[in-house]
Amino acid sequence: MKNFSLQCPIPISDYPNVLLAHGGGGKLMHNLIAKMFSAAFSNDILLQEHDSAQITLQENKIAFTTDSYVVKPLFFPGGDIGSLAVNGTVNDLAMSGAVPLYISLGLIIEEGFPMDELWKVVKSIAAAAEAAGVKIATGDTKVVDKGKGDGIFINTSGIGVMEHSLNISPKNIHSGDVIILNGDIGRHGIAIMAEREGLEFDHKIESDCAPLNGIVNDIISSEIDVHCMRDLTRGGLSSTLNELADSAGCAIEIDEVSVPVHEDVRGACEILGFDPMYVANEGKFITIVPRQQAEACLEILRKYNPESAIIGRINSANEAIVKLNSRIGTKRILDMLSGEQLPRIC
Amino acid sequence: MKNFSLQCPIPISDYPNVLLAHGGGGKLMHNLIAKMFSAAFSNDILLQEHDSAQITLQENKIAFTTDSYVVKPLFFPGGDIGSLAVNGTVNDLAMSGAVPLYISLGLIIEEGFPMDELWKVVKSIAAAAEAAGVKIATGDTKVVDKGKGDGIFINTSGIGVMEHSLNISPKNIHSGDVIILNGDIGRHGIAIMAEREGLEFDHKIESDCAPLNGIVNDIISSEIDVHCMRDLTRGGLSSTLNELADSAGCAIEIDEVSVPVHEDVRGACEILGFDPMYVANEGKFITIVPRQQAEACLEILRKYNPESAIIGRINSANEAIVKLNSRIGTKRILDMLSGEQLPRIC
Repeated sequence: MKNFSLQCPIPISDYPNVLLAHGGGGKLMHNLIAKMFSAAFSNDILLQEHDSAQITLQENKIAFTTDSYVVKPLFFPGGDIGSLAVNGTVNDLAMSGAVPLYISLGLIIEEGFPMDELWKVVKSIAAAAEAAGVKIATGDTKVVDKGKGDGIFINTSGIGVMEHSLNISPKNIHSGDVIILNGDIGRHGIAIMAEREGLEFDHKIESDCAPLNGIVNDIISSEIDVHCMRDLTRGGLSSTLNELADSAGCAIEIDEVSVPVHEDVRGACEILGFDPMYVANEGKFITIVPRQQAEACLEILRKYNPESAIIGRINSANEAIVKLNSRIGTKRILDMLSGEQLPRIC
Repeated sequence: MKNFSLQCPIPISDYPNVLLAHGGGGKLMHNLIAKMFSAAFSNDILLQEHDSAQITLQENKIAFTTDSYVVKPLFFPGGDIGSLAVNGTVNDLAMSGAVPLYISLGLIIEEGFPMDELWKVVKSIAAAAEAAGVKIATGDTKVVDKGKGDGIFINTSGIGVMEHSLNISPKNIHSGDVIILNGDIGRHGIAIMAEREGLEFDHKIESDCAPLNGIVNDIISSEIDVHCMRDLTRGGLSSTLNELADSAGCAIEIDEVSVPVHEDVRGACEILGFDPMYVANEGKFITIVPRQQAEACLEILRKYNPESAIIGRINSANEAIVKLNSRIGTKRILDMLSGEQLPRIC
């Protein structure tokens, strides 16, 4: 990690809080960019100081994605809005099998936001970018009046390059394929909700927020014929499965007993009235592969997380549907939620 | 333009206002995406329905940029937050000489935002994208609680390809170069402020919000050796000149009498206490070229706007400074504003 000063590089006594003027295009904004952002994110691309970053790619086939982050609270066990904003976008790129390389950073800050909290977020972004091996290539800062935002919102967009020739897509899901999950679910959503509601547990439940590009690279370079991958963010495992069933026009069957959920998460879900199948994750994904390659893929996933498991399969069907073989032996349809279970979870 | 239905595709009686659930990852969000966004933005890339857009580029030298738009009010004479969000990002790409191709769209909507206003914004985005020749390649929708946003904030990031071999950069500005402006300044900022303050003029002052990629393409394909370009957004002409002087370490000299300002804009500036040199534009830029090519470049710019003019030059100097030869014959330093003159102008 870059050698950050521990202190906020803009003396707190000068500007303890962000002012509207910090987003106004004048000296204060340039000072913020020069002293704080450039210090934290310094790289060859940012040094161009141009309206847009100029980048030479080694491949012509790219992936491009965007996500805004409005998580509340901004800091939570296992992460914060900064690490989330980097990892979430890195993971969207990784899910198409791309190697994430460049991230943009759009900040919308509420007037009055403490300067030292901004520095904490900026440090976290820089550390997460370094851990995931991506560069912050371009950025933008806006400040909105007090009461017209909520601390800080972050948008990151990302560019990755496709170094493989696989067809990783919902359209490539086939009957007979197997669904593999890379560990236990529900931790991110419960960590946020517990923090928001002031719930206390024996052991603090931490978000699983993490970059997935390393593990995806291992799978692809092992020549596993990945048909599809997707991370289990808003709406959790259940929404992801329903989206894929819809896009692919297939029937999905899941064995509930195979889906790892930690005891503390299960307990918190019972208290809060949630079903872990619908709770958001930030470091979990499913890989859909041909049956013959399931064990090889599982072996790779288990190197990262021994709880990785085969949780279901694709069946031939005339309708897009997700069925769950429940823990108690019954079968039921796992539907997509109508609205939100956990607002502002990411 | 695509054949939009005039009516909002989500019946107003169903959901007259955006709910938190529209950003929750469930059925309501998928319905919003399928019925409204996919209808307005439909293209081959979006149809992939994947976590990230997969794109094959014809060039591997690209430009990448991001901007968040928090303009207030959302609708103003000559544009709205939707057209601004497309043109602003298209112009940042064009300023590096890139051909803008793909735009991402991150929406942060405040709970309760009227669904028909969302549709107006979405239609405006689609129309602006079509006019500029770019595709909406990927998107994200978040909804924040009422009182934690301000109607709608939009982030767009953009990717363009570099089809030229020019070195368009502040570092390539040379002593003796000439600065050319593509028309009158100050209209965007004044249009917003007049709307915000309820000022009325004989003729409504309209924002100059427009895409600049067409004109830039004409300049580059005319083999003019462009040294630098930059658009005059937040902070106006003055801030742009100061940024360039800083980056290039050069002295800039501007003739105030050559800088076109419309009478109504000048009058409004006097009433509001603004200097047009600091007022934001959304369709104006400066081109910095070698003296021998200034007339050829000006001729191209005048095809688009007869008010285009040579407004100044680069002098050799030991310090980064911007000097103004004023209308009344005096010389003064044109400094960068300390804070904001016009908050939330874009």
